[in-house]
Amino acid sequence: MHETLRALAAGEISVAEAESRLAGYATGENGRFDAARESRNGVPEAVFAEGKPPDAVAELVALAVETTGRGLATRVDPRSAEAVTDRLAREFPEATVEYDEIARVLTARAADASLPSLDAVVGVVTAGTVDAGPAGEAAAVVAAMGARVERYDDVGVAGIHRLVDELDGLREADVLVVAAGREGALPTVVAGLVDVPVIGLPVASGYGHGGDGEAALAGLLQSCTVLSVVNIDAGFVAGAQAALVARTLDAARRE
Amino acid sequence: MHETLRALAAGEISVAEAESRLAGYATGENGRFDAARESRNGVPEAVFAEGKPPDAVAELVALAVETTGRGLATRVDPRSAEAVTDRLAREFPEATVEYDEIARVLTARAADASLPSLDAVVGVVTAGTVDAGPAGEAAAVVAAMGARVERYDDVGVAGIHRLVDELDGLREADVLVVAAGREGALPTVVAGLVDVPVIGLPVASGYGHGGDGEAALAGLLQSCTVLSVVNIDAGFVAGAQAALVARTLDAARRE
Amino acid sequence: MHETLRALAAGEISVAEAESRLAGYATGENGRFDAARESRNGVPEAVFAEGKPPDAVAELVALAVETTGRGLATRVDPRSAEAVTDRLAREFPEATVEYDEIARVLTARAADASLPSLDAVVGVVTAGTVDAGPAGEAAAVVAAMGARVERYDDVGVAGIHRLVDELDGLREADVLVVAAGREGALPTVVAGLVDVPVIGLPVASGYGHGGDGEAALAGLLQSCTVLSVVNIDAGFVAGAQAALVARTLDAARRE
Amino acid sequence: MHETLRALAAGEISVAEAESRLAGYATGENGRFDAARESRNGVPEAVFAEGKPPDAVAELVALAVETTGRGLATRVDPRSAEAVTDRLAREFPEATVEYDEIARVLTARAADASLPSLDAVVGVVTAGTVDAGPAGEAAAVVAAMGARVERYDDVGVAGIHRLVDELDGLREADVLVVAAGREGALPTVVAGLVDVPVIGLPVASGYGHGGDGEAALAGLLQSCTVLSVVNIDAGFVAGAQAALVARTLDAARRE
Amino acid sequence: MHETLRALAAGEISVAEAESRLAGYATGENGRFDAARESRNGVPEAVFAEGKPPDAVAELVALAVETTGRGLATRVDPRSAEAVTDRLAREFPEATVEYDEIARVLTARAADASLPSLDAVVGVVTAGTVDAGPAGEAAAVVAAMGARVERYDDVGVAGIHRLVDELDGLREADVLVVAAGREGALPTVVAGLVDVPVIGLPVASGYGHGGDGEAALAGLLQSCTVLSVVNIDAGFVAGAQAALVARTLDAARRE
Amino acid sequence: MHETLRALAAGEISVAEAESRLAGYATGENGRFDAARESRNGVPEAVFAEGKPPDAVAELVALAVETTGRGLATRVDPRSAEAVTDRLAREFPEATVEYDEIARVLTARAADASLPSLDAVVGVVTAGTVDAGPAGEAAAVVAAMGARVERYDDVGVAGIHRLVDELDGLREADVLVVAAGREGALPTVVAGLVDVPVIGLPVASGYGHGGDGEAALAGLLQSCTVLSVVNIDAGFVAGAQAALVARTLDAARRE
Amino acid sequence: MHETLRALAAGEISVAEAESRLAGYATGENGRFDAARESRNGVPEAVFAEGKPPDAVAELVALAVETTGRGLATRVDPRSAEAVTDRLAREFPEATVEYDEIARVLTARAADASLPSLDAVVGVVTAGTVDAGPAGEAAAVVAAMGARVERYDDVGVAGIHRLVDELDGLREADVLVVAAGREGALPTVVAGLVDVPVIGLPVASGYGHGGDGEAALAGLLQSCTVLSVVNIDAGFVAGAQAALVARTLDAARRE
Amino acid sequence: MHETLRALAAGEISVAEAESRLAGYATGENGRFDAARESRNGVPEAVFAEGKPPDAVAELVALAVETTGRGLATRVDPRSAEAVTDRLAREFPEATVEYDEIARVLTARAADASLPSLDAVVGVVTAGTVDAGPAGEAAAVVAAMGARVERYDDVGVAGIHRLVDELDGLREADVLVVAAGREGALPTVVAGLVDVPVIGLPVASGYGHGGDGEAALAGLLQSCTVLSVVNIDAGFVAGAQAALVARTLDAARRE
Repeated sequence: MHETLRALAAGEISVAEAESRLAGYATGENGRFDAARESRNGVPEAVFAEGKPPDAVAELVALAVETTGRGLATRVDPRSAEAVTDRLAREFPEATVEYDEIARVLTARAADASLPSLDAVVGVVTAGTVDAGPAGEAAAVVAAMGARVERYDDVGVAGIHRLVDELDGLREADVLVVAAGREGALPTVVAGLVDVPVIGLPVASGYGHGGDGEAALAGLLQSCTVLSVVNIDAGFVAGAQAALVARTLDAARRE
Repeated sequence: MHETLRALAAGEISVAEAESRLAGYATGENGRFDAARESRNGVPEAVFAEGKPPDAVAELVALAVETTGRGLATRVDPRSAEAVTDRLAREFPEATVEYDEIARVLTARAADASLPSLDAVVGVVTAGTVDAGPAGEAAAVVAAMGARVERYDDVGVAGIHRLVDELDGLREADVLVVAAGREGALPTVVAGLVDVPVIGLPVASGYGHGGDGEAALAGLLQSCTVLSVVNIDAGFVAGAQAALVARTLDAARRE
Repeated sequence: MHETLRALAAGEISVAEAESRLAGYATGENGRFDAARESRNGVPEAVFAEGKPPDAVAELVALAVETTGRGLATRVDPRSAEAVTDRLAREFPEATVEYDEIARVLTARAADASLPSLDAVVGVVTAGTVDAGPAGEAAAVVAAMGARVERYDDVGVAGIHRLVDELDGLREADVLVVAAGREGALPTVVAGLVDVPVIGLPVASGYGHGGDGEAALAGLLQSCTVLSVVNIDAGFVAGAQAALVARTLDAARRE
Repeated sequence: MHETLRALAAGEISVAEAESRLAGYATGENGRFDAARESRNGVPEAVFAEGKPPDAVAELVALAVETTGRGLATRVDPRSAEAVTDRLAREFPEATVEYDEIARVLTARAADASLPSLDAVVGVVTAGTVDAGPAGEAAAVVAAMGARVERYDDVGVAGIHRLVDELDGLREADVLVVAAGREGALPTVVAGLVDVPVIGLPVASGYGHGGDGEAALAGLLQSCTVLSVVNIDAGFVAGAQAALVARTLDAARRE
Repeated sequence: MHETLRALAAGEISVAEAESRLAGYATGENGRFDAARESRNGVPEAVFAEGKPPDAVAELVALAVETTGRGLATRVDPRSAEAVTDRLAREFPEATVEYDEIARVLTARAADASLPSLDAVVGVVTAGTVDAGPAGEAAAVVAAMGARVERYDDVGVAGIHRLVDELDGLREADVLVVAAGREGALPTVVAGLVDVPVIGLPVASGYGHGGDGEAALAGLLQSCTVLSVVNIDAGFVAGAQAALVARTLDAARRE
Repeated sequence: MHETLRALAAGEISVAEAESRLAGYATGENGRFDAARESRNGVPEAVFAEGKPPDAVAELVALAVETTGRGLATRVDPRSAEAVTDRLAREFPEATVEYDEIARVLTARAADASLPSLDAVVGVVTAGTVDAGPAGEAAAVVAAMGARVERYDDVGVAGIHRLVDELDGLREADVLVVAAGREGALPTVVAGLVDVPVIGLPVASGYGHGGDGEAALAGLLQSCTVLSVVNIDAGFVAGAQAALVARTLDAARRE
Repeated sequence: MHETLRALAAGEISVAEAESRLAGYATGENGRFDAARESRNGVPEAVFAEGKPPDAVAELVALAVETTGRGLATRVDPRSAEAVTDRLAREFPEATVEYDEIARVLTARAADASLPSLDAVVGVVTAGTVDAGPAGEAAAVVAAMGARVERYDDVGVAGIHRLVDELDGLREADVLVVAAGREGALPTVVAGLVDVPVIGLPVASGYGHGGDGEAALAGLLQSCTVLSVVNIDAGFVAGAQAALVARTLDAARRE
Repeated sequence: MHETLRALAAGEISVAEAESRLAGYATGENGRFDAARESRNGVPEAVFAEGKPPDAVAELVALAVETTGRGLATRVDPRSAEAVTDRLAREFPEATVEYDEIARVLTARAADASLPSLDAVVGVVTAGTVDAGPAGEAAAVVAAMGARVERYDDVGVAGIHRLVDELDGLREADVLVVAAGREGALPTVVAGLVDVPVIGLPVASGYGHGGDGEAALAGLLQSCTVLSVVNIDAGFVAGAQAALVARTLDAARRE
C-alpha cells in the first residue's frame, strides 16, 4: 500500500489507478472478482451465474463479500442460490442473503456492511408478467446501488387505460427503466408521456419472426420518441445505467 | 364465347374459369392486363408503375380502361401520370383521370363506367406524415373497390392524447388499416382499443438497425394484440384486403 | 361498481373504460387474467401455456372460468391439460373440459356459460399434416368465438388436383385461414381462386435455409395475390382475426 | 383556451393534456410541427430534413420559430440551409440562423427568444473524423436544450495514449455521449475509465461485413461495461437523452 | 502444340489438360477469355457485361469470336450491344450478331461457325413479365448450347387455369427451367405436375421483407416437391445446367 | 375405378389425374401416404421420420409397402428403424428391410416387388466423413429409383491430389451429386473438371459465422462454375433430382 | 514406396504428392486420419472431438499416435479424454497423455516421439475468463507445433490499466493471438499498441443481439487497426496460423 | 521535444508514447494525419479516399509527404489522383507520384525519402480479373512497407490446372495473400497446397444470395484448412498484415 500511495503522491499514477491497486482483484479458483469496479466505475461487480456451476457461483459471491462486504449475482438458479447460502452460512455466519427467484438475483451482505443510499427514484415498468425477470434484475441492481425503486407492473399497451392510471407516479420518477418484449411498444408510449430519461429494456419473449426480443430491440432503436436502449434481457445494464443517473442526481441534491 | 358457354353448361369448366375466358387477358406491347381479376378475386388488377417507362404505364392503363371501363395504377411518378393523362385524352377523351401525388396512385374511369359502391366503412390511420404514401395507396384501392374511406392522420403514439380524441370514430369503422413506420407501435395500440379487424401496414421509414420498415414489420408480427399484417409499404394489399372484408359485409347487409 | 357507473354517466370515462373496470382483471399467484379483453376487443383472453408450469396453467384457466364462464388455453402439453382438468374437477365440478392434443388447445366451459354463435363460416385449410397444429389452434379460437369452422386438410400444391376438388367448398366460406409451411405456396394459390379475404398462416416446418417457417412467412408477404399474414405458428392470431371478420358479418346479417 | 383551462380545473384532463392543447400543433402545407413537445417531453421538436425538399424544410423551421421562438433542424444539406435562411430573413428578419455543415444541423432563434440554460456538462467524444457528423448532431441538440458541451475529438482506441491524456476532462463531465463507428470500441473503453453515465452512439462507417454501423451497434449492446445505446447515426436521440439527464441534474442543483 | 500432344501421348497430362493447352486462353486488354471452357466443361464461356465499359465488352466478344467462332454475352445494355456490333462489323464483317433487349443477351457467330444441335427440348417457364429477363437469359444459353427451347410465359399461380392449359406441353419437355419472383410458388406447382427434372430460377422482384428474390430463393429451397435451384437472377446458370442435361440426353439418343 | 376410367375416356380428366385417383392416397392414423407420387412425379414418396414417434414411422412405411410394394424412409433413428422392422415382420413377414445408420435411411421391399433399374450412373461425392449422412441419403434415393450409384468419398479440396486421382471415374458418371459442408468448395472444383451436370448438396457442418451449412449453401449459389443446388442437408432432393436425370437418360438409351 | 519414388524421380508427381503417398492416410472404423497433413501444410491434423462418441475419438487419436508419434484432439469432453487415456494405456503403454479441461484439448505423445521446437514466441491474450477455452485451444496447438507460448490473461478493456501493465511483454512476442468475446474490443486495442502481427480470435460469449460471438467477429473485421481474424471460437485455426508464422521465423533465424 | 525526452528519461512515459509525441499528428483542414502510426504499429497511415472530396485527399496526402516523406492513399478515383498530383507538383515539385487505376492506390514520395526494404516475399494471388482491385490494394501496401511482391493472377478453381502450374512459385513465398470473390474457394485450395501462412481476402463480387462478398467471407471463415481472414475488399488490411509478417522475418534474417 505504501508504494501505491507514494506513486500517487508523486503524480506517477492517477487516483483511479491507485484505487484499483489498493482494492485489487480477488482471485479464486473459479475466476477473478473485480473488487475495485464500484470505486472505479460506480457500478458494483456482479457475478454472472448463468453457465457457472453452483460451487463457482458460491466462491465468487464469497469473494465479493470478503473484499467489499457485499455480493450481487445475476441469472442465479435455485441450486446456485442454495450453494451460495450454504457457503456464506459457513464462512460469514452473520451475513444476510436474499434470493429473488423471478428476477434470478441474489444479494448478500456482511453483517457490518454499509449500504449506499441515494436520494433519487428509479421507476421500473413492465408490460406483462413475461417481463418480470429482466425488470426484476434491473430493480435489484438499482436497489444494490442505493436508489429507491418504484415498480409499475402489467401496464402494457394492449390495455392502455391501465398505463394512463399510473401516469402521475411515472412522472414523479427521476429516471425510468421500461421493459417490454414482443413488439416492444411500451417504452415508446411511456417516453411520449413523461419528460425524464427513459431506458428501454427489450425482453426475449415472442416466437417466429422478430422473436426472442429482436423485434422489441429494433423497435426501441427506431422509437419516434427519445430513449436509450440496452441489449435484450440486459436488466443489469439497464438498472446500472439508471442508478448511475441516480448517483449523479444524489450528488447534485447533496451539494 | 359460344364454346365457353357450352363447356360451362356441360359442367366441363367451372364458373370462374368461364368468367376468366370470357373476360380474357388484354395484352399490349408492354405486358398483359388481367381484365378478369376483379370478377375472379374481387380485386381489380392494378398497374404497378414503379420501374416501368411512362409509355408502358400509359398503355397498360389504357388497356384497363378499354377492357374494364376503369384503370388503377400504383407507384406512379408525375411523368407517368402525365403520359397516362395524355394517352387517355387521345383514346378516351371522355374518360376522367385523377392522380394523387402523395399516394402516387392514378385512377381513371371511362365516361360510362359504373362504380362499385359498398355499404361499409374502412378506417385508414397514420402515425405521421411519413406514412401518407402507403396509407394513401391503401385508401385509393379501398375507394376503387367501392367502400367508404375515413382517414385518421397524425395520431402516432408519441402524442397519444391525439389518438384518444379519435377513438369514437375509430370504433365506428367496420375494418381498420393502420399504417406505421419506425417502431410501428400504433397498430398495436389501436387494436387494443377497438373490436373490429385491424390490418397493420408497416411503412419503410427510419434508418439504422431495423430501418426501412423491418422493425415495424417485426413489431406487427409480434403484436400482443390481434392484427394481421401485409408487407412493408404494401398499401395496395392492405387496402384490398380491407375492401374484401367490406365487400363481404356489404353483401351481408344487402341480404 | 357504483362509482364506475357514476363516472360513466358523468362522461368522465369512456364506455370501454367502464367495461374494463367492471370486468376487472383477475389476478392469481401465477399472473393476471384479462377478463375484460373480450368485451373490449372482441377476442377472449387465452392462456399461453408454453413455458408455464402445469399448476400455473391450471390456475389461470380456473380464473378464466371463474370470471368469464369459459377458458381457452393454447400451446398446452398433456401434463398441463391434466392439471387443468383436475383443478376444474375440484373447483367447478360441472364444467366441461376439452383438449385437442394435436392443436394443443384446451377449452373449458362452466355449466351455465352461454356460448357465442355467429352466422358466418371460417374455412381453415392445410397443405399437409405438419400444419395441423397451428391450423387446429386457429380453428379452436374461431370456434370459441362462435363462428362455424370448415376444415380442408392435406390440399397442398404438390398435388394440386386435390385442391381443385375442394374449390366449391372453399368459395362458400366467408373468410379463409390458410396454413402452410416449407415454401408456403398454398395461401397464394388459394387466394388466386377465391374472392373472400384470405389470412395466411405460416407454419414452422422445414430445415436449412428458410426453415422454421421463415421462407413461408417471406413468401406470404411477397404473394402476388391479396392476402394478409400473421406470424409463424400464430394460429391464435389468425383464427381470432378471421373470427373478428365473422363477428362483423354476423352483426350485418342480423341487422 | 378558456375551455381547456376549465376542463383542467374540473380535473377532466391532465396537466400535460392541457399544455398540449394550449400549445397546439402548428400545421403547414408540408406537415405538422409539434410545438408542445418540449413542454410535454422536455425535448424540442426537431425538423428531420433528410428527404424533404428545401421549401418544406424552410416552412417547418419557420413554423417552429413562429410557435416556439426557436427552430432546430437535423440532416440539413446546404441547399435546405439556404432556403431556411432566405425564408427566415423575409419572415423574421431579426431572427438569427446558424448552420453547421459537418453536423448538418441548423438552429434558428427569434430575436426575443429566451434560451434554456442548464447547470450541467455533457461530454461529447469521437474516435475519428468520420464520427464528426453524428457527434455534432448530438452536441447541437445538447446545446439547444441548454446544457454545456465539452468536445473530445479523435481519441480513438487505435492510439489510446490520446484518450488517456483527456481522462481528467472526461471524468468531470456529468454525462458522456461517445460516438464510434467501425468496431465501436471507444465507448466501452471510456465507460471503463469513468463513473458517470455513458451513452454510446454508433456511427455508420466501415464497409463489408458489419459495415454501416452494424458492428458498432452490436458491439455497444454487448459491451462488457455499463452503457446505454441509441441507433446508428442517431445523434439527435443521444444528445437529447444526455440533455434530459442534464435537465434533471440542473433541477437538483437548483433545489 | 507438338509438346502438348507429346505430353498427352506420354500419359503425362490428361485429355482435358491437353485440350485446355491447345485452346489456350485468349487475353486482351480487358481481361481473359477462357476459350477452352466449352471443351472442358461443356458450357461456353460467356462475357458477363454488367459493370464493364462497352469497349471492354466488345473486345471480349471479339476475342470469343476469334478463338471459338462464336460469342455469348449476358447482362448487356444497349450501349454495349452497339459497341459489340460496331467492332464485329469492322473485324468480322461476315459475322452475325443478335441482341435481345429484354434478356440482355447478345450472341455473335462467325460466318463459318458450326452450331451445336442437340436432340432434346428444354422448357422455359415464367410466372409473369417481370421474369422475362432472367428466363430469356436462360433460354439464350440453352439455344447457344444447341438444345431446342420451348417457352411458356405468364402462367403464374395467381391464375392457375392458365398453367393447367399448358400442361401437355410442359410434360413433353425433357427438362424445365421455371422462373419466378415474389413468393416463387410456380416452380413448386409445376414440379408437382410433371415427372422431368425442374430447375428453379428465382427472380429479383418484389419489395419489402423477402424482396429482391430472397423469398423466392428460400421458397424454392424449401419446396415440398423435388427441384434444384440456382441463385437469384442466375439465368445463365439455370440455362447451362438444363443444357448439360440436354447434352447428355442427346448423346444417349445418338448412341 | 370404372368412374375414373370413364371420365378419362371422356376427356374430362387428365391422365395424371386418373393415375392419382386410381392409386389414391393411403391414409393411416399418423397421416397420409401419397402412393401416386411416383407415377405422377417419378419420385417415390418417402417418409420423413424426423420428429415422428417410432410407431408413426412404422405405420407409414407399412402403408407404403402395402400400396406400392416398397417403402423408403429418411432421417430414421435406430429406435424407429427397429419399430419398422418389427411391424413389417408381423404384417409382411417376407418383406426385406435395410437400414443404413449413417445415412439414416431405411428401405423396405415386399417379397414380390419389382425394382426399377435404370441404365445410368449417378456419382455421389463427399469431401469428408461429416458429409456421409446427407450423401448417403442421396445415394439411397438414387438406388431406390433404380440408377447405379458410384461413391467417391473423402476427396475434399484441402488435399486436392486425392480428387485428381478420382478424375477418370468422375468423368464417366452421367450426373454427379457433390456434397460439402464448411466452406463448400468441392462442388465448384469438381464442376470445373467435368462436363456433366453437377448438383451441389450443402451439408450442415461447421460452427460460428456461416456455420450449419449456410456458408456452403451461399458458396454453391455463388459458384463460378455451372451447378444447381438443393437446400442444406437435403440429400433426398439431391438424389431424387439426379435420378430424374438418370430416368430421362435411361428412356433415351432404351429408345 | 518404390513406385512413388520412381514417379517422383521421373518428375511425374510433385514432392508434396510423393510425401502424401508415402505418409498415406490412416483409416479406422471411425474415419480417416490425415497423417501427411503436417508435412504438407505444416499443421498437424487434429481430431475434432465434438459430436463424436468417446470410442471414435480414442480410435482416431490412437491412429494419430501410431502414424505420427503424436496426437492432438480439440473440443474433448472429460468422458472422451478418459476413453483416449484408456485406449492409449492399452495400445501404447509408454505414451504420455495430457488433458486440459478448460481448453478441452488433449495431447498425446509416443515414448520416442521427437517434438518440434521453434525459436519464436506466440503471445496468447484473453480479456476475461470466458475466453479461456478458445485461447487455451490456440495455445495448445501453438505448443504442439513447437513455438513458445506466453499467456496474458484477464486484461480486458473494461479495466485498461491491467493491459498497460503487460505492454512490455506483449511487445516482445513475435506474433499475438488475442481472444475476446462480447464486444471484442481487446484485439483492436492491443493491435494499436504493438507492431507485430495480431490474429483476432472472437469468442462465443454474450447474449441477445450480436451474441454468440457475432458482435466480436464483426468488430474484428471492422477494426480500425491492422489484424487478421479467424471464425468464432476457432482457437485451433488462430493458434495454427500464429505457429505457421513462428515456423517461418524459426527458419529465418536458423538460416 | 525537450520535455518529451525528459519525461522518457524519467520513466514517466513509455518509448511508444515518446515516439508518438515526437512525431505528432499533422492536422489540416480536412482531418488529422497520424504521422506516428508507422513507428508505433509498423504500418504507415493511409488516406482512405472514398467519400472524401479530391481537395481533401490532396491535402491529406500532402500532409503525409510533409511529415513522413511518403504518402499512401487507397480507394482513390482518377479525379482525386489528379488533385493529388497537382497539389504535390506545386508544394513538392521533386516528389514522385504513382497511381494504379485498377487498384485505386496512389503512392507519393518526396525526393529524399528513404524507402524500407525487407528481405521477404509476399505472394498475392487472384482467382479472376474481378479480384484485381482489392488484390492490387494489398500488393501496393506490401510494396510500400518494403517487401517484395509476387503476383499470381487468374488462377481460379474453375480451371484448376492453371493453379497447379504456379505451385512451385507459390511455395517459395514467405506469406500469401489470396483474394477471391463469388464462392471464395481459392484461398482454401491454395492453403491446402502450401505450408506458409495464407491470408484470405474476400472480394465483393457476385449477385443474389451471398453476393457482395458475404459468401466468400463466410466460406473463408469456415475453411477446412488453416488461414486467417480480413473483411470484404479490405486489401489494405490483408497487405499490411502480410507485410507485418515480412517485417518480422526480415528482422530475423538480419539477426
